[in-house]
Amino acid sequence: MRLFKKVAIVGVGLIGGSIALAMKKKKLAGEIVGVSRHRNTLKLALKRGAIDRGSLNLKIIEGADLIVLCAPVGVILNQAREIAAIAPKSAIVTDVGSTKQAIVSRLDKIFPRYIGSHPLAGSQRRGILNAQSDIFKGSLCILTPSRNTHRPTQDKIKRLWLRLGARVITLPAARHDKILSFTSHLPHILAFSLISAVPEGFLKFASTGLRDTTRIAASESELWSDIFLSNRKNILRSLDILQNNLGRIKSAINKKDKRLLNRILKQAKDKRDRL
Amino acid sequence: MRLFKKVAIVGVGLIGGSIALAMKKKKLAGEIVGVSRHRNTLKLALKRGAIDRGSLNLKIIEGADLIVLCAPVGVILNQAREIAAIAPKSAIVTDVGSTKQAIVSRLDKIFPRYIGSHPLAGSQRRGILNAQSDIFKGSLCILTPSRNTHRPTQDKIKRLWLRLGARVITLPAARHDKILSFTSHLPHILAFSLISAVPEGFLKFASTGLRDTTRIAASESELWSDIFLSNRKNILRSLDILQNNLGRIKSAINKKDKRLLNRILKQAKDKRDRL
Repeated sequence: MRLFKKVAIVGVGLIGGSIALAMKKKKLAGEIVGVSRHRNTLKLALKRGAIDRGSLNLKIIEGADLIVLCAPVGVILNQAREIAAIAPKSAIVTDVGSTKQAIVSRLDKIFPRYIGSHPLAGSQRRGILNAQSDIFKGSLCILTPSRNTHRPTQDKIKRLWLRLGARVITLPAARHDKILSFTSHLPHILAFSLISAVPEGFLKFASTGLRDTTRIAASESELWSDIFLSNRKNILRSLDILQNNLGRIKSAINKKDKRLLNRILKQAKDKRDRL
Repeated sequence: MRLFKKVAIVGVGLIGGSIALAMKKKKLAGEIVGVSRHRNTLKLALKRGAIDRGSLNLKIIEGADLIVLCAPVGVILNQAREIAAIAPKSAIVTDVGSTKQAIVSRLDKIFPRYIGSHPLAGSQRRGILNAQSDIFKGSLCILTPSRNTHRPTQDKIKRLWLRLGARVITLPAARHDKILSFTSHLPHILAFSLISAVPEGFLKFASTGLRDTTRIAASESELWSDIFLSNRKNILRSLDILQNNLGRIKSAINKKDKRLLNRILKQAKDKRDRL
C-alpha cells in the first residue's frame, strides 16, 4: 500500500539505497528520486532499480511528500537550508543520522514536519552496491521526536519503518545520543585504537578474536569522525569510564592480584552472557 | 597412519577434546586416555568417542608415548612435576597453553622430550561438548622450540598438527608471547573492559558492532586471568600502546580537530582492510 507519492532520498548509499529498494519492493512510494554528489552512484542506483530518477542537483526533490536525508551528519547539516528552500512546506522530512541531538535541534527549526530516525542497521560496508531491501528486517529503529514534532508526522514515519521490517521505539535525542555513545561509538573508538596498536608484522597472526573486535574499524573514517565530533561530550564521558575500566584491569595485572582480576573478568563475562 | 601408541590428553575440554576427536578420526593413535578434574567431563568424552578410557587420576598416563597438556596455564604448571614422575622418560610431551614463556622454561627442564604448541583455534566457548574434530583445519599452530628441543620431538609434533589440518610455524617462546599480547590478549582485555563500561540498561540497544567487539568477553574468566598474569610484562606494554592510541583519539575529539581525527581513523581503517 502506497504511503507516499514522491519520495526523495538524499544520499543514495548503503542506508539510503536500502530504504529505496525496500520501499520499491513494498510499493510504498509512487515515485522515488535520488540525490547524490556522485554521478556513478546515481547510475548504479538506477540500474539496481532503487530510484526512478536521479540528480546531482537538489532541485529534483521539488514536490516530494517524503524527504529522507541519508548523507553523513555533517553533510545533512550543511544542506538543510538549501533543501528547505526547495521542498514543499508540507513535506515530511526525516534523516538517518547516527547521532541525533545536533541534527534534531537544527532540522526541527528548519522543517515544519520533521522527525529524526536512527535505524540500527548497516555494517562496516557502505555504498549503493551493498544496499539490500531487507537490512531493516528485525532491526531496531529509534525515533527521536521533540516537543515540536507533529503527531501525524511521527505516526507516518513510524508506519514507514514498521513496513520496512524494523521494530520502532522513541527516545529523546539527548537520551539516544547518550546510549549510543556506549553501545556504538565507544566500540568503534576501541576498534580503531586496537587495530592501530597492533604492529603491522603481527597482523598475519590474527585469529578470530582480533578479527571480530576490529571488524568495525573497517568503517568509513570520514563518517565516523563526523559522528564522534557530533556526539563529543557523551563520547568523552563514556571514554572516561572505559579508560577507568582498562586501568582497573591493568592495575590488577600489574599487582598480580589474581582474585581481583578474576572478579572483574567474571562480572564482565556475566554481563556479556546477558547480551 | 598411526603416529602414537598411547596418547594421554590431560584436560579434556574444548581443545583437548578436539585433539582427541581429530586423532581418533584420522586414526593417529592406538589408544587415547583422558584425565580430567571432573567425572562428568570424562563421561561425556567417553560418550563422544574422544577417549577410550578416562580417569581423575594422573596414573592413567603411565606408558603413554604422547602426552598433551590441555589444562589452563596455571594448572599445567602445578601438575608438571607429578606428571613427569609417572610418564616414561621417552614420552613426547606438548601443551596447548596460550602463553608460552612461563610454560616452556618450566616444562623444558622437567620433560626430556618437550616442545610447546599453541593452536590458534577455539572460541569463547569451552568444554568437551563444544569440541569438534575439525577445529584445527586451516588454523595456525605455533610451535615454540627452545635450545633444548630435540629435533625428532619437534618433527613428530609438527607432523601431528599438520595431520590435524593446521598450518605450522615455529617461533621462540618470547616472540610468541609478545605477538600474542597484541593479537589476542589485548583484544580480550578490551572486550572485557568495553562490556563492563556499558550500563546494564543500555544492553538492549546493542547492535552487531557491540556484539562483535565484545564476543570474546564471554570467554572463561579464570582461563584469561591465568593468561594475563602469565604474560604480564608484554601485556602491560601492549596496554600502554593501546592507551596511548585511545588518548590520541580522545584528544582529537576533545580539541574538535577533525583533520587529525580523520587521519587517525583512516590509518586504522587502512590497516584493518589489510587484515
